Amino acid sequence: MFPEYDVIVVGAGHAGCEAAVAAANLGSKVCLVTMNMQTIAQMSCNPAMGGVAKGQIVREIDALGGYSGIVTDHTMVQFRMLNRSKGPAMWSPRAQSDRMLFARKWRNMLEEHPNVDFWQDMVKGLVIRGGVVRGVVTSMGLEIPGKAVVLTNGTFLNGIIHIGEKQLGGGRAGESAAKGITEQLVELGFEAGRMKTGTPPRVDGRTLNYDAMEVQPGDENPGKFSYTDTPPITKQLPCHVTYTSTQVHETLKTGFDRSPMFNGRIQGLGPRYCPSIEDKINRFADKDRHQLFVEPEGWDTCEIYVNGFSSSLPEDVQYKALRLIPGFENVKMFRPGYAIEYDYFPPTQLEMTLETRLVKNLFFAGQINGTTGYEEAACQGMMAGFNAHLAINEQEPLIIKRSEGYIGVLIDDLVNKGTQEPYRMFTSRAEYRILLRQDNADLRLTPLAHQLGVRGMEERMERVQVKEASAKAIERFLEEYSIAPEQINQYLESKESSATRQKVKLSTILLRPNINLDDLREVVPDLHQFLQAHTQECVELAEINMKYEGYIRKEQELVNKMNRLEEVKLWDTLDYHALPSLSKEAREKLTRMRPRTIGQASRISGISPSDISVLLVHMGR
Amino acid sequence: MFPEYDVIVVGAGHAGCEAAVAAANLGSKVCLVTMNMQTIAQMSCNPAMGGVAKGQIVREIDALGGYSGIVTDHTMVQFRMLNRSKGPAMWSPRAQSDRMLFARKWRNMLEEHPNVDFWQDMVKGLVIRGGVVRGVVTSMGLEIPGKAVVLTNGTFLNGIIHIGEKQLGGGRAGESAAKGITEQLVELGFEAGRMKTGTPPRVDGRTLNYDAMEVQPGDENPGKFSYTDTPPITKQLPCHVTYTSTQVHETLKTGFDRSPMFNGRIQGLGPRYCPSIEDKINRFADKDRHQLFVEPEGWDTCEIYVNGFSSSLPEDVQYKALRLIPGFENVKMFRPGYAIEYDYFPPTQLEMTLETRLVKNLFFAGQINGTTGYEEAACQGMMAGFNAHLAINEQEPLIIKRSEGYIGVLIDDLVNKGTQEPYRMFTSRAEYRILLRQDNADLRLTPLAHQLGVRGMEERMERVQVKEASAKAIERFLEEYSIAPEQINQYLESKESSATRQKVKLSTILLRPNINLDDLREVVPDLHQFLQAHTQECVELAEINMKYEGYIRKEQELVNKMNRLEEVKLWDTLDYHALPSLSKEAREKLTRMRPRTIGQASRISGISPSDISVLLVHMGR
Repeated sequence: MFPEYDVIVVGAGHAGCEAAVAAANLGSKVCLVTMNMQTIAQMSCNPAMGGVAKGQIVREIDALGGYSGIVTDHTMVQFRMLNRSKGPAMWSPRAQSDRMLFARKWRNMLEEHPNVDFWQDMVKGLVIRGGVVRGVVTSMGLEIPGKAVVLTNGTFLNGIIHIGEKQLGGGRAGESAAKGITEQLVELGFEAGRMKTGTPPRVDGRTLNYDAMEVQPGDENPGKFSYTDTPPITKQLPCHVTYTSTQVHETLKTGFDRSPMFNGRIQGLGPRYCPSIEDKINRFADKDRHQLFVEPEGWDTCEIYVNGFSSSLPEDVQYKALRLIPGFENVKMFRPGYAIEYDYFPPTQLEMTLETRLVKNLFFAGQINGTTGYEEAACQGMMAGFNAHLAINEQEPLIIKRSEGYIGVLIDDLVNKGTQEPYRMFTSRAEYRILLRQDNADLRLTPLAHQLGVRGMEERMERVQVKEASAKAIERFLEEYSIAPEQINQYLESKESSATRQKVKLSTILLRPNINLDDLREVVPDLHQFLQAHTQECVELAEINMKYEGYIRKEQELVNKMNRLEEVKLWDTLDYHALPSLSKEAREKLTRMRPRTIGQASRISGISPSDISVLLVHMGR
Repeated sequence: MFPEYDVIVVGAGHAGCEAAVAAANLGSKVCLVTMNMQTIAQMSCNPAMGGVAKGQIVREIDALGGYSGIVTDHTMVQFRMLNRSKGPAMWSPRAQSDRMLFARKWRNMLEEHPNVDFWQDMVKGLVIRGGVVRGVVTSMGLEIPGKAVVLTNGTFLNGIIHIGEKQLGGGRAGESAAKGITEQLVELGFEAGRMKTGTPPRVDGRTLNYDAMEVQPGDENPGKFSYTDTPPITKQLPCHVTYTSTQVHETLKTGFDRSPMFNGRIQGLGPRYCPSIEDKINRFADKDRHQLFVEPEGWDTCEIYVNGFSSSLPEDVQYKALRLIPGFENVKMFRPGYAIEYDYFPPTQLEMTLETRLVKNLFFAGQINGTTGYEEAACQGMMAGFNAHLAINEQEPLIIKRSEGYIGVLIDDLVNKGTQEPYRMFTSRAEYRILLRQDNADLRLTPLAHQLGVRGMEERMERVQVKEASAKAIERFLEEYSIAPEQINQYLESKESSATRQKVKLSTILLRPNINLDDLREVVPDLHQFLQAHTQECVELAEINMKYEGYIRKEQELVNKMNRLEEVKLWDTLDYHALPSLSKEAREKLTRMRPRTIGQASRISGISPSDISVLLVHMGR
């Protein structure tokens, strides 16, 4: 009944949707299989995209032609650039979206892709012949043939929902769990584990007293995620901030004996950095309050997401505690928070392409790999989608380096270190933070996507070139334009910066602390006039390039050094069997495949970082 | 954890949503319990409201303050007035809606109602004490206390989905079935049965060739459902029409041996007048083609509903047959059609208020009563909601008479005749069709809602009064205005109507066949000028009143006669025990309750139409 698809994507959450787009954008015929076409791209947890390090990932996805940024731009109700007061490496875009519009827009964009087909059904198994995946089998008993399969099962694999002492089967509240896939994979030799995540109560905004909370409006000049010309948001909804108290904590503690977290009923580990409220109370016993973000779920719904109050305590305890929170005195819930346990597969069983080592052309992406977060899931989906296409077309895989993107950091961490608890991205996980900024994801990654042949990248590439040229021109202007003391000293004094006695280049002034281009252009009309020909984005890039030039150069040198190591040639005559420190697998594979460089060697399945170190030492590095 | 609600509504489909609104519109505090807040007001089957007799019901719901009409008006992608070429009793509005917007708008309107709370959970049982319902118990193990409960479970009670020889548990494709309620009710003495319904495949509009089909555009001057000032639609999407063929039928027949309809696997009876394609082929063996309507699911989705191709044949057979249909040569499915079996409770177990006879304050509405159709469900929900409020406040129930609305016909049929197969409304079920028109539902029913105190009815009532006065004024003008032969004869001849020799009243001309006001106003400038002060709605009402005056009067006299019988007084001294033809239950209840009129007697639970006949004979009628 079905044609043979190039790529079958199982699941249509953030990972699945991006996987489908990525493979389709390279020309693969894709079948996206979802249990329910009405719930494509549901935001299961909070109605927001981005945040610290995560915002950078969304920008990277966008730079590579994924849709997460575009969908968010079209559906956001609020935008904030987090960490504006810190250095540009820390700036992180974050948006609240209208939950229902987000899903609608995603579905709409997928439908508009000529290479994406849809099938509503539950996948209960894989077709595997000779160690190669050949398709999937559904609960309707159908076989959909495919050359590659990307599994993005989220929390659905044998999902169990916990609320206090109660357990309910389900992949999400109100939706069924998926069975069959784990069992088959374990039989094939995969190692599976259990993880846990949680979600806070949803409450009725009509019952909240916002006057008792702090308002948190969106940015005055809201940004956006996509480097394409998505429309900027013109109207925003505020969030609100409130706090728990010792009284709230004491009330929550009355439920601890019935908590599945504390009585051992939940076996899987939860996300350390997105803990439940009971976990926070337990781990930070000295804190007498925790911040809560009261987030709207959309333009015209009263449903509210209580960010920070994730819980699997009994619903009556959640309810009593909620009512003690300022502004929540009369709150009504739509549903309680809950924890959910689900199967994952330790990601050390994957190649850097996200292909499984045990089954050829089978890829995993998202929570199935032990990660948490929409953005983490989405970027894995995209990489799995790209690499599924490349694998079946016998092309070189796309591996993003740690120096090229958070996506590279994420996948490298997963595959080489594995994870014991739901893995979340942080800026601290990246060693080249000043290079991996939210403002330059397009410069870093769009050329890769362009080279790969991703659909629509010609125009994107032109934008990148214009942006780079524009920033260069601004830098040149600043380096060449000198300003007289009488023109600048008043401004410098106002910024507590020492006055100058002679003409000085604008670039020199800019390097001083407290000085920025937005101010400078107010003081220097020529500068203002020059900058008017350039977009704010290019002005910002030029400013960062100049102000952080030293840091950027230092990190880039480090990267170059690492890259040179990658290009170290391996002698043709090298006898790998004579290197006992190599693993047996490495000796065999290197002998058979004879890579020409360290870089090539490192991308061979089964060659570990320690094998690479052995080779480098042997080659005299 | 919960306050005691006045009314708990279980299920948030068409019946549940209208039940919540109706009770809330009378002032009850309502808790709407749904398995999934993302699927409130999902159109489970075709994305359309209205149609023959059903359109009239939507207008009646609107006249009584329900939201179905308003939601449809806001979300429609196409409007057609069916049967325009027939008499006005047959005119039936029908609209295609954007499936996702329809759900969003409904949820939005419910959220805006201050009396409606929400709870996401599955109800698995009722709390009943002393024969009175006291609340519900959910799958989270929670008890929600309530004075009245309305069950609107749709196809979810022990739902089983059939596709060919496969059976899947589920309340809808991709959603879980509900268990527990049937079992509890049967234990209490309720009779339960199984019914069956079906839905066609959903297909990918990108794979259809519309050039091979007939276009079916919306009306040039599209109408709407609500009597309020909802905006008229300004842009429409076309539907398309195509046909099966003997070749399609032969292909479908190859699956008959695997059909759950024909091999006895499905026990429940299906809707006779909304049959599956295999049923049509079987029952109308001489027809060599059946019409199919190719209906879009929304503004920006390529999903297509293949109206007329409902099927539970194996999906490969559905697929092969679909591909033989003109325009469908390259079709891809999103999901196959399927049949679904579910529990219902024969509605003869209900009062005319839709309260169950066995459990006080427990009401049933929608498919649980053996009906099919969104409109049938919605109007029952509304009536159950009204009567739940009235019951707990010990007010007189709201019973709509057969002469007052299709709603009255529907409920009277259900309660007094029961139904063996899914009950669908037809104009032929109504004995007073010329009274129960789509154009006058407001005149018929808004006064009832106003009297009842339904929220927002003051303004509605004013509109009704203006409409009636306006129509009267138009009628008077036509009756008083005479026209000369030379002004009118050319027009009459063009309509093949005999010329007149003397001045004649416009009202006399209007009564002739082929003559209508739209034409007349073109010929008579004074008339045109006069009508310009009146809305098209009022012009239409006046025209119908005049052209069909004889029929309307005759039906009204019949109704009056029946109503007079209702008002026949019962002697205070009447000894019911002396009337052996009365049922034992009737003798006891009449003796105890001593109704003052036949009408009151007929509304006592357990008093049957035949008891009423006995009383009428005894009272000399």
